[in-house]
Amino acid sequence: MTLAAPRVDTGDTAWLLAATALVLLMTPGLALFYGGMVRTKSVLNMLMMSFVSIALVTVVWLAAGYSLVFGEDTAGGLIGSLDHLGMAGLGPDSVQGTVPTLLFATFQLTFAVITAALVSGAIADRAKFGAWLVFVPVWTLLVYVPVAHWTWGPGGWILDRLGALDFAGGLPVEITSGASGLALCLVLGPRLGFKKDAMRPHNLPMVMLGAGLLWFGWFGFNAGSALGANGLAAAAFLNTLAAGCTGLLGWLLVEQKRDGHATTLGAASGAVAGLVAITPSCGSVSLLGALVVGLAAGVVCSYAVSWKFRLNYDDSLDVVGVHLVGGVIGTLLIGVFAVESMTGGAEGLLYGGGLGQLGRQLVAVAAVGAYAFLVTYGIGQLIDRTLGFRASEEQEHAGLDLTVHAETAYDHGVPGGHGGPVTSSPVSLAQKVKPQA
Amino acid sequence: MTLAAPRVDTGDTAWLLAATALVLLMTPGLALFYGGMVRTKSVLNMLMMSFVSIALVTVVWLAAGYSLVFGEDTAGGLIGSLDHLGMAGLGPDSVQGTVPTLLFATFQLTFAVITAALVSGAIADRAKFGAWLVFVPVWTLLVYVPVAHWTWGPGGWILDRLGALDFAGGLPVEITSGASGLALCLVLGPRLGFKKDAMRPHNLPMVMLGAGLLWFGWFGFNAGSALGANGLAAAAFLNTLAAGCTGLLGWLLVEQKRDGHATTLGAASGAVAGLVAITPSCGSVSLLGALVVGLAAGVVCSYAVSWKFRLNYDDSLDVVGVHLVGGVIGTLLIGVFAVESMTGGAEGLLYGGGLGQLGRQLVAVAAVGAYAFLVTYGIGQLIDRTLGFRASEEQEHAGLDLTVHAETAYDHGVPGGHGGPVTSSPVSLAQKVKPQA
Amino acid sequence: MTLAAPRVDTGDTAWLLAATALVLLMTPGLALFYGGMVRTKSVLNMLMMSFVSIALVTVVWLAAGYSLVFGEDTAGGLIGSLDHLGMAGLGPDSVQGTVPTLLFATFQLTFAVITAALVSGAIADRAKFGAWLVFVPVWTLLVYVPVAHWTWGPGGWILDRLGALDFAGGLPVEITSGASGLALCLVLGPRLGFKKDAMRPHNLPMVMLGAGLLWFGWFGFNAGSALGANGLAAAAFLNTLAAGCTGLLGWLLVEQKRDGHATTLGAASGAVAGLVAITPSCGSVSLLGALVVGLAAGVVCSYAVSWKFRLNYDDSLDVVGVHLVGGVIGTLLIGVFAVESMTGGAEGLLYGGGLGQLGRQLVAVAAVGAYAFLVTYGIGQLIDRTLGFRASEEQEHAGLDLTVHAETAYDHGVPGGHGGPVTSSPVSLAQKVKPQA
Repeated sequence: MTLAAPRVDTGDTAWLLAATALVLLMTPGLALFYGGMVRTKSVLNMLMMSFVSIALVTVVWLAAGYSLVFGEDTAGGLIGSLDHLGMAGLGPDSVQGTVPTLLFATFQLTFAVITAALVSGAIADRAKFGAWLVFVPVWTLLVYVPVAHWTWGPGGWILDRLGALDFAGGLPVEITSGASGLALCLVLGPRLGFKKDAMRPHNLPMVMLGAGLLWFGWFGFNAGSALGANGLAAAAFLNTLAAGCTGLLGWLLVEQKRDGHATTLGAASGAVAGLVAITPSCGSVSLLGALVVGLAAGVVCSYAVSWKFRLNYDDSLDVVGVHLVGGVIGTLLIGVFAVESMTGGAEGLLYGGGLGQLGRQLVAVAAVGAYAFLVTYGIGQLIDRTLGFRASEEQEHAGLDLTVHAETAYDHGVPGGHGGPVTSSPVSLAQKVKPQA
Repeated sequence: MTLAAPRVDTGDTAWLLAATALVLLMTPGLALFYGGMVRTKSVLNMLMMSFVSIALVTVVWLAAGYSLVFGEDTAGGLIGSLDHLGMAGLGPDSVQGTVPTLLFATFQLTFAVITAALVSGAIADRAKFGAWLVFVPVWTLLVYVPVAHWTWGPGGWILDRLGALDFAGGLPVEITSGASGLALCLVLGPRLGFKKDAMRPHNLPMVMLGAGLLWFGWFGFNAGSALGANGLAAAAFLNTLAAGCTGLLGWLLVEQKRDGHATTLGAASGAVAGLVAITPSCGSVSLLGALVVGLAAGVVCSYAVSWKFRLNYDDSLDVVGVHLVGGVIGTLLIGVFAVESMTGGAEGLLYGGGLGQLGRQLVAVAAVGAYAFLVTYGIGQLIDRTLGFRASEEQEHAGLDLTVHAETAYDHGVPGGHGGPVTSSPVSLAQKVKPQA
Repeated sequence: MTLAAPRVDTGDTAWLLAATALVLLMTPGLALFYGGMVRTKSVLNMLMMSFVSIALVTVVWLAAGYSLVFGEDTAGGLIGSLDHLGMAGLGPDSVQGTVPTLLFATFQLTFAVITAALVSGAIADRAKFGAWLVFVPVWTLLVYVPVAHWTWGPGGWILDRLGALDFAGGLPVEITSGASGLALCLVLGPRLGFKKDAMRPHNLPMVMLGAGLLWFGWFGFNAGSALGANGLAAAAFLNTLAAGCTGLLGWLLVEQKRDGHATTLGAASGAVAGLVAITPSCGSVSLLGALVVGLAAGVVCSYAVSWKFRLNYDDSLDVVGVHLVGGVIGTLLIGVFAVESMTGGAEGLLYGGGLGQLGRQLVAVAAVGAYAFLVTYGIGQLIDRTLGFRASEEQEHAGLDLTVHAETAYDHGVPGGHGGPVTSSPVSLAQKVKPQA
């Protein structure tokens, strides 16, 4: 009797190829979502922080990240091996489950990319670009990679040993980015004018476009995490849609009741909050669970985003209020709404599973949140004391686009002239201000 | 002998997962397409009408819509059963054809979502947002759901009994949204300044972006309707591309001849008109048929959009001129261009099938158009007489963004300043005007 | 013994359906990428050149292009047959490899579309729109179609006879568009104010959005070229991501060192340069090769885009500097980095394959570059001497949007007013200027 060679299923592979492309689109989508929310003078810097994250994290992942996360466990569930440094030993014929290993590795890579980019929202408008270029690779190796191994690595302590559940990244993506964002905005301090100036989004249609692209890509993120084209992927897909919808409705309901009007920023934020919360839970909870998870996230996060004003941390684009809080809600509620038909075993409180799963989720949330916060705070301090992490007051006042990147986002030739004839030799601010690196 | 259990085909499932995500992207795409066409003062309201449609229709669909459309027929082809209220009886293991039932249900849901959103174009700039929140669920249940059951439900009277054809939604999507848009803009009356003011699109690149995303998603809409990854999907895909192209060319030709210039708005509108018309017919007609269907839609719709000025209905963003007219053209032309190699039976006039199919198409078009118009008119009147459907003159004049949502789409800090330094404490209109819900 | 009938694999088909949609999105993505780079007065014209390319090339492809490229070879590897004019003989049941032939034909069509659109970047702001409408079909038939047959046609001289390699279009897409762009900008001459005026991009977030959509679509372009959902597709996908990333980093490194700042335009251009270079090579080279190919393209192209100022050709949006130069780099480096595990045979210099493959690549590059340049130059001259290819000085000065398309990209009602109340009867430039076709 011979063991059949592992074989690629073309259908599973087709879905994972599409899903990987979808997740990669999320980072440009996030760039626009964030970019629309900042003021005109720093939108390009915001876009750049996301785009360079794609490049930097990819290089780190191929060099060592993949091996440390998905290589054989070497330390009691804490970190993977160095066997696949530089993707050694993997080629077009390698198979993981029913898909090519290189595809599995690329799919997982896209998660690392967007997690790093998410952190940037907490420090909008005031970070040194050079410091960000150092932070991203270091943070990926020291924070994302270990947490991802704990969660999804073979023998990782959270899923494989503790028995907590996280289908698509509540722990390594949402809680990690949220807790890290909190640490980093404490290191950098608030923007000039925080709590005094309005700092309204400069382009809300851009925010909505970003939200639309994020939602689109999120189907790849969540339903792709089934690693195949099957009923579980379908259920995760539907749960993802359902939770995004109730998140949107929950946020708007609070706004309407509290402020007297429902906003587009609220609609976009609510949808994202719902999507964040369903990320860990989409492959575990019932449809009812998904609707509740999304609604809870929409309602709670709509309040959580104002904590920063009371507690005085300038989490500029609400990474804490949406990703940390939403991620915690979604990860914990697995302990309530998990159903056996999805998990193949574990059941939540509501379906007779008792308090056990909820307890396991709580341990995982606390451990990951604390680890991400502390290590990121350390990395941030180290960078701040050596390179400096904060842009100069002058740069921040004039805007990072002009002073760091020597560009302006929009240039319509003559002030106030839209679409009309442009003078043949426009003189712009960019030519008058000497950029500083 | 045992009957083989129904089995999921991973390839078919992979394509339907991707197609479902594609169709969902169409609604944010539509939001941008519509949003770019309105004036700066109500772009956010336009975006909001689409985004809340995603959320509201999803909830209605999961609660009852799916069951009423795809549950066993209970009334002579008129409506489905209540067996699957709240998606009862369906789980990750349910199979429909060769795909998970939950995926089939989600794919179909995305059609309901965009149909509701399409209607909003007819009443741009002047609808009460609260009234829209009531209209969408009621309309979905009373208009979309019955027509979808007639068309695609098991035992529905149009396809299964009458023998008319509609591959991807000429009846439930295009004609229904178009006729409903007509009804609703009659209920609300024209915008202030209709036929007097220019009301030009405030952002044509946004319109083109929306058109691009719509076209992209439309491949999921049409080729996904094959419910599998096969030759029929491929043919529907190619027909979709072909008709979009000749629609674009047809509209531009008319513009060039009639007005002396070809516009981007015409290119976008022509492509959409072609796509609308090929929606019902993409799975039935020959390639030649697809080219003609698109061309006919592009040419006819380029004239149809000006009817509103002569007949005095303010179909603001041309839902009637494009979706109703284009949908009728495409649904009828099935009776001319249907080929047996696509339909597996029915043939059109051109291919020797006689007038029978054309007659069946005509009956379906007339019934759906009349039903959608009348019921929507009734719903509109009811809402108008109770809650009021139309925003106040003051709100409309100042713009719904500021007065309803307390936001402005763009905020560049200092008037006319693009990308330059922003004053540290901008005073904006939003702070001076008290929003009214 | 009977020969098994060719069968469609649903997984391969699912991926190719998704990939085809992805590649089609690239042209609207390119439209935005280019549109953001030009000045406000001609953004719509830029968008239009891409959108009409979709329509025109589709019609040409269905009429004759497909047959001439993929029909049986009729002239020693130079051109295909006329057997499938008008897609004759092909229907939903036709199979090519493991996918429907109509899908294969549509996938290939999308390559022809974007190649034509790419050329437009070299002649931004100054081409007669009517001349472009003539140029695109003629150029597709005389330049794209032969080169595509040489490369991918059955019996084509480059791949099948010479033994050069080109996985996804370095020759027919990148080098052809780049060499043609060079020819065409020589025919038209530089823009008014070239080298004197700043001509800065009017909307850099739009450029980044376009770059994001291009990158997303490029996964369909490159990994779709495996024509199936398999390990080769996975490897091509990862190589595509890797090279885009090192291209981005390479360009930014040069900018930082040379100019003292890293720009968003550089990030977008660098990613595109890396993606261009990996297009021919993604299915042949090792991962190390992909990283080097991208880096080389990012670095070299960041210098190549300034050649135009020294050599006095106004390649306005750097089609030569990015697509020709990047395409040559990527096609040649196959001769260095090809590995047997990807190619199934051929090996590059680095992996012990000697200089043979590099020589074959060089012959192909030279032949395609020369052919595309010369024939395009001829077509351009012919159009210029008959219809005229260049817009009038008056049109160019006032902007093509207003003078050719009778539109303006943005209209915020009152000058400098963003989102505020709009006057009820705005008088705009468009109403005062008589458009000229």
